[in-house]
Amino acid sequence: MRPGSTARRRIERIRVDGAGVDRRTRDDLLAVEEPLEIRLVRAEDTGRAEEAATRVAVTMRTPGADFELAAGFLYSEGLIDGPDSIGRIRYCTDAPQQYNTVSVHLAPGADFDPSLLSRNFYATSSCGVCGKASIDAVMGPACTVLADGFTVDAGLLVALPDRLREAQRVFERTGGLHGAAQFTPDGTLVRAREDVGRHNALDKLVGAALLEHQLPLAESIVLVSGRLSFELVQKAARAGVPVLAGVSAPSSLAVRLADEAGMTLAGFVRDGGFNVYAGGGRIVHRTRQGVGG
Amino acid sequence: MRPGSTARRRIERIRVDGAGVDRRTRDDLLAVEEPLEIRLVRAEDTGRAEEAATRVAVTMRTPGADFELAAGFLYSEGLIDGPDSIGRIRYCTDAPQQYNTVSVHLAPGADFDPSLLSRNFYATSSCGVCGKASIDAVMGPACTVLADGFTVDAGLLVALPDRLREAQRVFERTGGLHGAAQFTPDGTLVRAREDVGRHNALDKLVGAALLEHQLPLAESIVLVSGRLSFELVQKAARAGVPVLAGVSAPSSLAVRLADEAGMTLAGFVRDGGFNVYAGGGRIVHRTRQGVGG
Repeated sequence: MRPGSTARRRIERIRVDGAGVDRRTRDDLLAVEEPLEIRLVRAEDTGRAEEAATRVAVTMRTPGADFELAAGFLYSEGLIDGPDSIGRIRYCTDAPQQYNTVSVHLAPGADFDPSLLSRNFYATSSCGVCGKASIDAVMGPACTVLADGFTVDAGLLVALPDRLREAQRVFERTGGLHGAAQFTPDGTLVRAREDVGRHNALDKLVGAALLEHQLPLAESIVLVSGRLSFELVQKAARAGVPVLAGVSAPSSLAVRLADEAGMTLAGFVRDGGFNVYAGGGRIVHRTRQGVGG
Repeated sequence: MRPGSTARRRIERIRVDGAGVDRRTRDDLLAVEEPLEIRLVRAEDTGRAEEAATRVAVTMRTPGADFELAAGFLYSEGLIDGPDSIGRIRYCTDAPQQYNTVSVHLAPGADFDPSLLSRNFYATSSCGVCGKASIDAVMGPACTVLADGFTVDAGLLVALPDRLREAQRVFERTGGLHGAAQFTPDGTLVRAREDVGRHNALDKLVGAALLEHQLPLAESIVLVSGRLSFELVQKAARAGVPVLAGVSAPSSLAVRLADEAGMTLAGFVRDGGFNVYAGGGRIVHRTRQGVGG
């Protein structure tokens, strides 16, 4: 059976106050967390036994948008170059965990660099890369050059978290999901994705854009819930995002990579304000009222 | 140079209101995020070239408590059985990233199971295990049996998040760190650790207990900031924690594993209340006033 994105659970809600303790049993919705194994299959191996597939990674994810997640992950890691690398994507219905295993079949002529698989190890182990040399490698030829001349209005930026929350329906119901959303320069929501894993939410977003031939996201603002880690900046840079914003704090390495990528990094976007950690030149103040309000 | 846990950065603070936009430059503190490579060295290989070391994992972490993080990670993954497995832990000062590489030298006679390294891959890629069979494996002989008869007062539990925040000094300054704290049954803080990575904060906590020969944590309440993922429950179960609490939501698989481990799992511990997802029998209400207040 195909897993859903929420699961019902009987829980106890406990309230403590001066009068005592109140315990009530009720139904609650949980965000589903299940492993997804991502496999790569070369075109010439399509139709052969599953042994010809390369097991790239397993990630704990919320079911839904699994093909986008697989595509976005492979793109972020540099294992595919774009939508033309992909022949088809399907669930491995012959695997024991059929809806938790996705095969990405490469298009004829497309290939991947097996030496990147050890890098995947690091990237998916919440690491990424180590030190200057590797940061250069991340920002090398595979990286999309970030858009010049792109600006975003400060008043519009502060309004985006509410729009992400509106779009995050599962979050509202379970409280347990991270979100990532893409907006146009005038603040229109293009798409939003959510997942128990912050990185997965962004991979799903990037993968959706990739499958719709909309990469790079050169004219987009991307907003993520939670902390701005190095890996999120890395994935956004690879997708060509000029402005990455988050509702919480960035890490030191996230800021350093944003500097090197020429990306605008805004944190603590909440309560009518935000902090700019890199690329402040893209933040402008338009005089007309009501923009993004 | 040894990396610190915070880094200073010149940022712009932007406020938007009806009157316009206010931009001010100021100094800010960031949580440092740097890779830590964890290596294992068998006793008979100590003193030999570093090639004899097994590279187990790289994790993005906040520097500080690195030896605890390495010990806790190896214990959580089942690669070591306890403090007696460890001969010594040191930084690989001959590695290019000297304070970002830690070698754990096994004690004479101790060994590790190389077949677990592929599982580490999964675990560190925010996965863990896949499906029922593997959950059984996690909860197998390596898992500490959870304490019977241990109870925690509801009024005490709701007071713990404030105590974790008090203990999280770096969090207050950067806003970017996750915390994990261990409390006695009467709510006394035993130790707290913090990290940009939620899992690392718990690994540091467990590693500290291990190095002080205090595992299992059978008489402890552990509180974590943020979401209760499957992996956190897995690590806590391995450490023998009977009550795991968090300020946010658990995932479906976290609840399932807590059920199987016989662990009490409390989420949304905030604002004078909490939800109990598993093991509600350990939550009691003591009649005397002021407990844990």
